[in-house]
Amino acid sequence: MTPDDLFAAHGDLLDEDRLDEWTDLFTDDCLYLVIPRENVDRGLPLAAIRCESRGYLKDRVVAVRETSMYAPRSQRHVIGAARAQADGTVTASYAVFQTLADEPTKVFSAGRYVARIVDGRFAELRCIYDSTLVDNSIVKPL
Amino acid sequence: MTPDDLFAAHGDLLDEDRLDEWTDLFTDDCLYLVIPRENVDRGLPLAAIRCESRGYLKDRVVAVRETSMYAPRSQRHVIGAARAQADGTVTASYAVFQTLADEPTKVFSAGRYVARIVDGRFAELRCIYDSTLVDNSIVKPL
Amino acid sequence: MTPDDLFAAHGDLLDEDRLDEWTDLFTDDCLYLVIPRENVDRGLPLAAIRCESRGYLKDRVVAVRETSMYAPRSQRHVIGAARAQADGTVTASYAVFQTLADEPTKVFSAGRYVARIVDGRFAELRCIYDSTLVDNSIVKPL
Repeated sequence: MTPDDLFAAHGDLLDEDRLDEWTDLFTDDCLYLVIPRENVDRGLPLAAIRCESRGYLKDRVVAVRETSMYAPRSQRHVIGAARAQADGTVTASYAVFQTLADEPTKVFSAGRYVARIVDGRFAELRCIYDSTLVDNSIVKPL
Repeated sequence: MTPDDLFAAHGDLLDEDRLDEWTDLFTDDCLYLVIPRENVDRGLPLAAIRCESRGYLKDRVVAVRETSMYAPRSQRHVIGAARAQADGTVTASYAVFQTLADEPTKVFSAGRYVARIVDGRFAELRCIYDSTLVDNSIVKPL
Repeated sequence: MTPDDLFAAHGDLLDEDRLDEWTDLFTDDCLYLVIPRENVDRGLPLAAIRCESRGYLKDRVVAVRETSMYAPRSQRHVIGAARAQADGTVTASYAVFQTLADEPTKVFSAGRYVARIVDGRFAELRCIYDSTLVDNSIVKPL
C-alpha cells in the first residue's frame, strides 16, 4: 500500500464502521493520537484520544460499539494527497463531515494527519485537528 | 484513465457545467444512482436520481438545463483517493459544496461513490450520500 | 514533483504557515490570482489577491505576517486530484476550512485551481473561488 492507499483505507474503514479491519492498518506497538493543534503547538500532551498500542485501539473499538448515549450519525472523511516531509513523516490534510438523522451534513473536523509508516502500516498516526479545544464530542476515531 | 482520473473528471465536468462531456464517462448501458445511505443500508430502492442507461443521463442533462425554478449556484466536488474493494468495485469519499449568489459556501452533501469501471468508464456509479432523506433539492447530478 | 505533489505542497505550506517555502513553489515571473468565479465568467479583472511575480508573493507574505487586525485562525486545504485539461492547464478542486479560537470549524472557501506548471513550479496559479463577491476577509493566500 502506498501512503495514499493507507490514508484512503483509514478513512473508508472508519466511515463504513469496519473497525476491526481498521485496527489492522496499525503496527502492534503503534501510537494513535487525536489531539488539538493548539496542544501540539504548545507542547501540551492532552489528547482527545490516545492509544499506545494496537491493543488499545481494539479496546477503543469496543468502547465505540458500546457507547449507547450518542445518536446515530454518519461520518465521512475526505483526505488530500499524502506528502513526504523532510523528517520522514508523511502528512495529509483531511476534513470529516458528520450527518445526524434528519439533519443536513456539517463539517465536523478539519486538520492534518502526521504519520510514520512502517511496511505499509501506521507505526504512528497523529490526527491533529484545527481547534483550541479538547472536544468531548469526539467518540469515534478520526 | 485511472479510477482517480475518472472520478476527478466526473467532479470537474459536473462543476464546470460540461454536462455532455460528463455523459461520455459512462457506458451505454450504465446505471447511475444518487441514493441516501439509509436506503442502501435498509435495501430500499428509492433514489433521488436513477438513470438506467446513458440515454437517461442525457435526458437528465436536458432536464437540468431546462429547470428554471432554481437559483444560480455553483457546486464543487472534492473527492478523495479511489480505493479498490474486494468485491471489484472502486470507492471514493466525496464532499460537494454549494455557493448561492451573495451567500457563503456551504456543505451540500458528503458521502461515498461506489463504482464499477469497465474500460475506463463507469458501468455503474452509485453516489451514496450520508442522509436519511431523499432530498428534493438534488437537481444536478452529484 | 507531480502536479498532485505540487498542489499538496501548496496547501500544506500555507496551512502550516511555512510561507517562505511556499513562494519557492512559483517561478520568478509567476502570476498568482485569487479571483471569484463570477469575475472569471464575466471577464472582469478584479481579484481579491493579484501577484504578478514572485517578488509580489514575498511582499504578500510580509503583509500577512504584519496584519495584526485579524484574530488567530487555522486554515486547512483539502485538494482533489489534479486533472490535465486540453488547453495545457492543470486543474484541481479545493475546499478550505477555517477554525477560529473556541469556534467550530467552518467552510471558508471552495473552488478550483487552474495552473500552468513549468519544471515543477507554478508559472500561473489561479484560485477561482465559488462566489459572486470579492471577499475582503481573504487575507492569507488560498
